Amino acid sequence: MPQAAMPPEAARAAAQRIMARCAALAEISETPGALTRVYLSPEHLRANQCVGAWMEAAGMRVWQDSVGNLCGRYEAATPGAPALLLGSHLDTVRDAGRYDGMLGVLAAIEVVGELHRTGCRLPVALEVMGFADEEGTRFGVTLLGSRGLTGTWPAAWLSRTDANGTSVARALQEAGLDAARIGAAARPAADILAYLELHIEQGPCLEAAGLPLGVVTAINGARRLNCHFVGEANHAGTVPMGQRRDALAAAAEWTLAVERLATAAGQHLVATVGTLHCLPGAVNVIPGEARLSLDIRGPQDAPLAALLDTLLSEAHAIAARRGLLFTAEQYYAINATACDPRLQACLARSVAAVQGESLSLPSGAGHDAIAVAERWPVGMLFVRCDRGISHHPDESVAEADVAAAAAAYFAAALAVATELAPT
Amino acid sequence: MPQAAMPPEAARAAAQRIMARCAALAEISETPGALTRVYLSPEHLRANQCVGAWMEAAGMRVWQDSVGNLCGRYEAATPGAPALLLGSHLDTVRDAGRYDGMLGVLAAIEVVGELHRTGCRLPVALEVMGFADEEGTRFGVTLLGSRGLTGTWPAAWLSRTDANGTSVARALQEAGLDAARIGAAARPAADILAYLELHIEQGPCLEAAGLPLGVVTAINGARRLNCHFVGEANHAGTVPMGQRRDALAAAAEWTLAVERLATAAGQHLVATVGTLHCLPGAVNVIPGEARLSLDIRGPQDAPLAALLDTLLSEAHAIAARRGLLFTAEQYYAINATACDPRLQACLARSVAAVQGESLSLPSGAGHDAIAVAERWPVGMLFVRCDRGISHHPDESVAEADVAAAAAAYFAAALAVATELAPT
Repeated sequence: MPQAAMPPEAARAAAQRIMARCAALAEISETPGALTRVYLSPEHLRANQCVGAWMEAAGMRVWQDSVGNLCGRYEAATPGAPALLLGSHLDTVRDAGRYDGMLGVLAAIEVVGELHRTGCRLPVALEVMGFADEEGTRFGVTLLGSRGLTGTWPAAWLSRTDANGTSVARALQEAGLDAARIGAAARPAADILAYLELHIEQGPCLEAAGLPLGVVTAINGARRLNCHFVGEANHAGTVPMGQRRDALAAAAEWTLAVERLATAAGQHLVATVGTLHCLPGAVNVIPGEARLSLDIRGPQDAPLAALLDTLLSEAHAIAARRGLLFTAEQYYAINATACDPRLQACLARSVAAVQGESLSLPSGAGHDAIAVAERWPVGMLFVRCDRGISHHPDESVAEADVAAAAAAYFAAALAVATELAPT
Repeated sequence: MPQAAMPPEAARAAAQRIMARCAALAEISETPGALTRVYLSPEHLRANQCVGAWMEAAGMRVWQDSVGNLCGRYEAATPGAPALLLGSHLDTVRDAGRYDGMLGVLAAIEVVGELHRTGCRLPVALEVMGFADEEGTRFGVTLLGSRGLTGTWPAAWLSRTDANGTSVARALQEAGLDAARIGAAARPAADILAYLELHIEQGPCLEAAGLPLGVVTAINGARRLNCHFVGEANHAGTVPMGQRRDALAAAAEWTLAVERLATAAGQHLVATVGTLHCLPGAVNVIPGEARLSLDIRGPQDAPLAALLDTLLSEAHAIAARRGLLFTAEQYYAINATACDPRLQACLARSVAAVQGESLSLPSGAGHDAIAVAERWPVGMLFVRCDRGISHHPDESVAEADVAAAAAAYFAAALAVATELAPT
């Protein structure tokens, strides 16, 4: 086994490279002046080529799999041994930040690069994944890359279309891939030991705690619903206040209830009304309809389900009291994903070695680790980001935090490799 | 002087004609299957021709004035005597009902037609106005027709453009009118004694009282504001409830406060949030901005101003407590218009003669009478409409109510003509 820690000067150099490469990748965009790189776009394929070259320079054998994931393998001391997966994703939302996803892929390359420079081989292989589509920006379904790896693509995904009417199948073909070979991306369970993903926190908790790094306990389960209050549109000047059936007022009352009840529920639960449209939507008309979304998340499924029940009951009560109709349709649900306790322990020791203490927190955002966890143990390392901002050009991480992250990721990978190595 | 009342059979026949003519006018539309007729459109000019023919058949001399108002004069016993104005407007909102405006013009023609059939002349002339643009649908400014009559068109109106970029000046030219002659529509103060407008209520108060007709006390003053809460957009899954600066939650809290405080204020005050947009407006993003409109109205200016102050103070307090910014810009203000007490008394007597009692109520909607009141005394007679619905294809009035309205309008016009006739 090699040294268990990345030397400080190596971590600083790694952080410099990571920051420069995040900047370079941010230039590979469909939209001038903003970062947008969606699944199977020419820019996605260019990013894969660019990152693939960095992987090769770090001593990896590189290939693109049949769903477009970029893969690099740093062979084990014994060729053909199972692999510990590292990495994250290379696609973005529209007008994105430059660290969400990319930071994890580039940090993983640094873990391998440090081994390569020092000529070390581990008892297991390291494979770095640049997942092809985590965000779902183009086709409206998420985790296409990691679900290629687990072999759980629903066939129906092939006929989904983007905003231009291009299907997934057609987009694969245009990218030089073949819809008939999707299954080839799936990896046998025995090939892989575990997955360690590094990612920006996308939330304010590490910053609030004054710590660069944290260990994820679970990835929140989530439900998304389209909700609808129906009252009666009418003239804003002629209908007395007591005779209105104002759908926006009802939606407002419920929006406040969502905020109040989620806050009271605790247990890391969050609930958000992110969209609200009222119809007809004129200054001088009492709104007759209000359509709004509900996004609710939490690290444990049962409290989440209980809060959702409470919120929907409250909506029905508000509607009934005001003489309105309320309906809600759940269109997205994902259970909470627990991170593996042994991986959490390895990560916590590595984090504590770097910053003196560790901090455990749930992930409010979704990650490729959700899909990977269907088949293999997962662990996640979070890096502090400025004000918790992500999915925005202002997304920012400190280079010193990235150096700490590279060192902790390196140490954790080696610890996991040792702990999980086949005996 | 003639008989002071329209015989019941004449009122029934008048109501039948009015209903048939409302249906005929509803066919003169820019949009197939829906009623839309905006200022200076070919359909507006066709409606003027059609209604002009009905005016001529009712014994009037007919002309179109220099802003496009349709005018008909039924001469007094003494030719050249000042006129009592009757009528309303002939333009519509988009996808409109068929009674808003038209009912008043067609009822006024029946008042004159009844005099004509019985060969009666009054001590004053009757002039029926089909105002050209009350709604402001095309150019975004209201009361263009009635402000032509009062000579209060701001010159800046000529350069306003519609959605196709056509200016008012150009639209006048295309309609065969001349922007340089706008001033010719203005009438000397001595030509006109008063204005009596008949209109659907556009509200639910008469229906709630079980009465076909009511007398307007005042036309509500109104203020309209664009309001803006600014917080911080962030990830809906990662930011704990206690660390959010959710602009939609603030807007919701204020929307409820608007409803609560306007209700508590009484005095016929109404306040409405009719539009609300949140940004970025994604299911998984905490809204960073919310833009909403406020429409506030009341029949007396001082209580209206006091309520508006209270509502804005509340918005600032909500924003401050939540760490947000609030701004509001008032972009429209119109003072309340009191109806003339003598005209109200004449109308109330005529209404009571028809339905046994009268009912006085403010008008929540704006009307041409607002503009006319700048120069001449105004009175308004309201007709019950189904569920208070207006500005909608479901707008509806009962033919029996229209017969009652024609009879009361006739009686009121004769009473006013007698009371205001120069001695």
